[in-house]
Amino acid sequence: MNTPHLELSFIAARLEGLEETIIFKLIDRAQFCTNLSGYERGKSGFSSDVSHSLFEIRMLHQERMDAQFGRFCVPEERPFTHDLPAPQRLVNLPDSKLHISNFDFISQAKDILTSYLELIPKICISGDDGQYGSSVEDDIYAIQSIARRIHYGALYVAESKYASDPGTYGRFIKTRDTDALMEKLTRKEVEDSIVERIRNKTISTQLFVNRVVRNAIDPDVVAEYYKEWIIPLTKKGEIAYLINRQNV
Amino acid sequence: MNTPHLELSFIAARLEGLEETIIFKLIDRAQFCTNLSGYERGKSGFSSDVSHSLFEIRMLHQERMDAQFGRFCVPEERPFTHDLPAPQRLVNLPDSKLHISNFDFISQAKDILTSYLELIPKICISGDDGQYGSSVEDDIYAIQSIARRIHYGALYVAESKYASDPGTYGRFIKTRDTDALMEKLTRKEVEDSIVERIRNKTISTQLFVNRVVRNAIDPDVVAEYYKEWIIPLTKKGEIAYLINRQNV
Repeated sequence: MNTPHLELSFIAARLEGLEETIIFKLIDRAQFCTNLSGYERGKSGFSSDVSHSLFEIRMLHQERMDAQFGRFCVPEERPFTHDLPAPQRLVNLPDSKLHISNFDFISQAKDILTSYLELIPKICISGDDGQYGSSVEDDIYAIQSIARRIHYGALYVAESKYASDPGTYGRFIKTRDTDALMEKLTRKEVEDSIVERIRNKTISTQLFVNRVVRNAIDPDVVAEYYKEWIIPLTKKGEIAYLINRQNV
Repeated sequence: MNTPHLELSFIAARLEGLEETIIFKLIDRAQFCTNLSGYERGKSGFSSDVSHSLFEIRMLHQERMDAQFGRFCVPEERPFTHDLPAPQRLVNLPDSKLHISNFDFISQAKDILTSYLELIPKICISGDDGQYGSSVEDDIYAIQSIARRIHYGALYVAESKYASDPGTYGRFIKTRDTDALMEKLTRKEVEDSIVERIRNKTISTQLFVNRVVRNAIDPDVVAEYYKEWIIPLTKKGEIAYLINRQNV
């Protein structure tokens, strides 16, 4: 395998580098209360739109803007909404070396959204501080950083692993044997070490935080979120990539 | 003074709480190279706009979106661009207890922008990684968090100090004696302790970072930026507030 960015060590380093960004964005969100009104339909304050929550409207506006800047031309940037405008910007991307006709085949956006909304009450102080706009703004940045990690892993880890043993993967793909694929993809000791690293990073990032002025998040909650959602959804995305891989 | 949010200890705690957010966003930006093309006019890739840089176009789109969500109804959220759309959202804000007819009187946006653009090469690795979109996206989040800190301090620290000694402040304001106001506002030992705290927070946030996969920023650079820009611009904003204060 001569393509450096398909080497597993390169991909693992990229994934590791995204961890702090996710932790930072969750900590920033946790400086506001749960602010449940931000997630209730009809309570957005937008008189022109009573059928969506403020969170949903913010997501839509953000993705419409991002689409114009070409975000979704990038394989690992999969949107949460539909019917987005075409890019207005010419984006020059290197060949991804991925073999899939539509990057959205690997999207885990629905489950990422569900899992993220369940995470909010576990990291934020319960209650209402009136800062709905700031809360949903931070939500979007956090969920985008989580989705980037999952979709990047789904695409590039899967392609890298396939390339390391096309014979075995090809056989499982042809027989649609997702159990065998899952078993072959899984490296329990690597997953455990990632979860442990996340716990340690969340601890060290907040080691000297002044808890009188900042809300600290529970390192176990972030570790658990990685274990129960980020890693499994990445693997689900990997399976989706393999099953849809071209030229097997 | 019976208004809790005008008590200096409350305001100082809020300002301290914003520090990590600024540090996090600078660290996130520093994961990309300087990417100077993102700041050069005509290189945005937008065929519809050849007279602005990608950074400028992103700022404009972000602020147009933010304006619709009501961001600039908040006193400390001062925009970097002009001719923004009206809010589409009903924003319920508590009385700010500020005494100024136009919050933009205290805006330091121009100097914040200049100082931030000078900061980029001091925190990012020199070069071009092609990630222009991500770079300017992180720029906007970083510069917004810096501006929030400066403008919040400018408005509320100034009002709080005025309220603690309206006689003396009123005299200096009436004679437009900005030197005397600056002297009365300045508490060197507090400023020094903030700068030192920033240095320590930047160190502790990155204490266990894996420098093989993440670029770490220099704690002295962030401390220096606070000392040379954030604190002085906050005080410039405080003077602007006092000079424009109503009912002196």
